[in-house]
Amino acid sequence: MIDLDDIRAAARRLHGVAHRRPVNTSRTLDELTGAHVFLKAENLQRAGAFKFRGAFNAVASLPAEERRGGVATVSSGNHAQALALAARLHDVPAVILMPEDAPEAKLAATRGYGAEVIPFDRYAQDREALLAELVEARGLQPVHPYDDPGVMAGQGTAALELLEDAGPLDLLLVPVGGGGLIAGCATAIAGVSPGTRVIGVEPEAGDDTRRSLQAGERVTIPVPRTIADGQQLPAPGELTFPVVQQLVEDVVTVSDAEIVATMRVLFERCKTVAEPSGASAPAALLHGRLPLPGARVGAIISGGNVAADRFAALMEEA
Amino acid sequence: MIDLDDIRAAARRLHGVAHRRPVNTSRTLDELTGAHVFLKAENLQRAGAFKFRGAFNAVASLPAEERRGGVATVSSGNHAQALALAARLHDVPAVILMPEDAPEAKLAATRGYGAEVIPFDRYAQDREALLAELVEARGLQPVHPYDDPGVMAGQGTAALELLEDAGPLDLLLVPVGGGGLIAGCATAIAGVSPGTRVIGVEPEAGDDTRRSLQAGERVTIPVPRTIADGQQLPAPGELTFPVVQQLVEDVVTVSDAEIVATMRVLFERCKTVAEPSGASAPAALLHGRLPLPGARVGAIISGGNVAADRFAALMEEA
Repeated sequence: MIDLDDIRAAARRLHGVAHRRPVNTSRTLDELTGAHVFLKAENLQRAGAFKFRGAFNAVASLPAEERRGGVATVSSGNHAQALALAARLHDVPAVILMPEDAPEAKLAATRGYGAEVIPFDRYAQDREALLAELVEARGLQPVHPYDDPGVMAGQGTAALELLEDAGPLDLLLVPVGGGGLIAGCATAIAGVSPGTRVIGVEPEAGDDTRRSLQAGERVTIPVPRTIADGQQLPAPGELTFPVVQQLVEDVVTVSDAEIVATMRVLFERCKTVAEPSGASAPAALLHGRLPLPGARVGAIISGGNVAADRFAALMEEA
Repeated sequence: MIDLDDIRAAARRLHGVAHRRPVNTSRTLDELTGAHVFLKAENLQRAGAFKFRGAFNAVASLPAEERRGGVATVSSGNHAQALALAARLHDVPAVILMPEDAPEAKLAATRGYGAEVIPFDRYAQDREALLAELVEARGLQPVHPYDDPGVMAGQGTAALELLEDAGPLDLLLVPVGGGGLIAGCATAIAGVSPGTRVIGVEPEAGDDTRRSLQAGERVTIPVPRTIADGQQLPAPGELTFPVVQQLVEDVVTVSDAEIVATMRVLFERCKTVAEPSGASAPAALLHGRLPLPGARVGAIISGGNVAADRFAALMEEA
C-alpha cells in the first residue's frame, strides 16, 4: 500500500519535470452540468497523458544500479510513451511490449522517444507472461503500468495538484483502466481531503472494476472492445484493486457514443483534445451519471493522444 | 491613430474580464522550427477568439447614452460572437450582419449570446453599405470589426500580454484579416519592444494586405476563396492599413494545405484546437516562411471556432 508521504515524495521528484497546467474551468460545462467543474488537463502532460507522472516517479525511485540496465513494460500506449520518455530523461534504455493494434500514433511516438517496441496480440497472448520473459532474458527492470507502488504514487500527484489549484472539491471523477490513477488519486484525497468523494469511470464494455467491486474480488472479463483503448483491460490490478475497494465510493460507466459526444464538446467548447479514455470522466459529468447541482466537481482528462484522422473518423461515425 | 496609452487603457478595461491564459511553449514546435516558439492561445479567449478584446474595449469605451441604444456590426463570425458577448456583458442589444455562408456554428453561437443575426451574401452585397443602412434605420452604434480605434487598441492587448509573459521576442507573427489585430499588436510592440519585428500572415488566396504594401496603397482583390474564413476579406482597413504600412515589416502567405497541416500538428502535438485562420501564423512558422534558427518567436493562435465536423472534413480531404 502507498500512503500520502509516497505521493508527496513523488510530487517532489516531479517538480519542474512534469507539466503543471492551470486547472480548466468552463462556463459551458458548468451550464451543461449544473456543477462547478474543474478539469485537470493531463492531456497537456508530457507525452500527452498522466502516465508520465507514474513512469517518471517509478524510474526515479529505482536504485541507480538497477536502473542502469534499462526498463521494460507492457502497455496499450500512453504508459509506453511515458516510460520511454522517463527512461530517456534518465539516460537508460527502454523496451516496450505494445499491442499490435494500438493506435499507430502511439507506436510511432514510443519509438520516437527512443524505445525499442515489441508488438504482441492483445486478444491471444498473455501480456504478463510476455513481460516476465522479456525482463528475465534481457536483465531489465519491469515498470508495470499500474501494479507498481512508484507508478501509483506518481499518478496520485495529479489529485494533489488539482486540490491545491481548484480548492475544496465535493467529488472527483477519475477514469479507470488498470486502476493506477484512481488508486493514487484516492490515496491522495484520503490524506488531504477525506470529505471528497472519489468516483471511478469505466467504459460500459470494460466494466471489470465495477463488477469486481460488486463481487468483492477481482473479476476478469474478456478483453473489452471499446474505443477507449486506454481502458481496454480485462481486470483490475492486483495492487490497485485493494486500494480501490477501500477508498473509492463507486464506479460508473459511460458508452462509447457518450465518449465521442464528450470529445466533441471538449473540442468545440473547450478547444481541447481528449483521446477516448481521456473523455470518459467528463462524459460521466455530461451524461447525468451523478447528482451534481451546485457541487464542486473535479474530473481528470487523462490523455490527449488521438490522431487527427482517428478523431475525424469518430466524429463522422457519430 | 492609436498609441500605447490606448492599449494600456484597454488592458485595464479587459483586466478580469478577458481570459489571460499562460503562453504555450512546445518542445515539438521548437524542434520542428529551430526557434523558441511562444504561442498566444487566443483560441482559448472568451467567445473563442481574440476578437473579444477589441469588441469589449470598443463597447466599454462608448459613452453610456450611445451604448444604451445598442450596437451593430458586420462580421464573418468571430467579431460577431465577440460583439454579441460584449453587448450582453454591458446589458445592451446587438444586431449582427453575417455572411449567409458563415460556418453554422458561428451563426448559432452569435444567436446564443442573445444577438439578432441578419444574413447577407458576401459575394454580391456591399457589407459596409448594409451596415450603414442598418445603423441609420435602428439608431445603433456601429462597432466595426477592425476599422475602429477602440477595437484596434483592444486587440493590441494580446501582444502586450504575450511580451509580458514570454519575455523578449525577436519576432511576432500575427494573422491578418482586416488588420485590426496586427495594427493593435504592432502599436503595442512599437511602444514597449521596438526591436521586435512584426510580420503579418495571410492566406495565399487572400493576400490583399501583402499586395497593398507592395503597391503603397490599399488594393482590393475579389473576395478570396480560402478555408481561412476569418481572413476572407478583399482589402485592408482604412484605419488599419496606415498602421500596418508604418509598423509591420512584411506580410508572408500560407496555402490552405499548409493551414490544414498546421491544424493537424496543433491538434496532435499541442492538443489544442485552432480554426483555419487561427492556424495561419503557426503555419508560417512550420512551413519555413522565415529564417528562424535560434530566434525567440511569438505567434498568435487567433481563434478556435471550428466545428468538429468541419475539422473532420478538412482532415479527410488532406
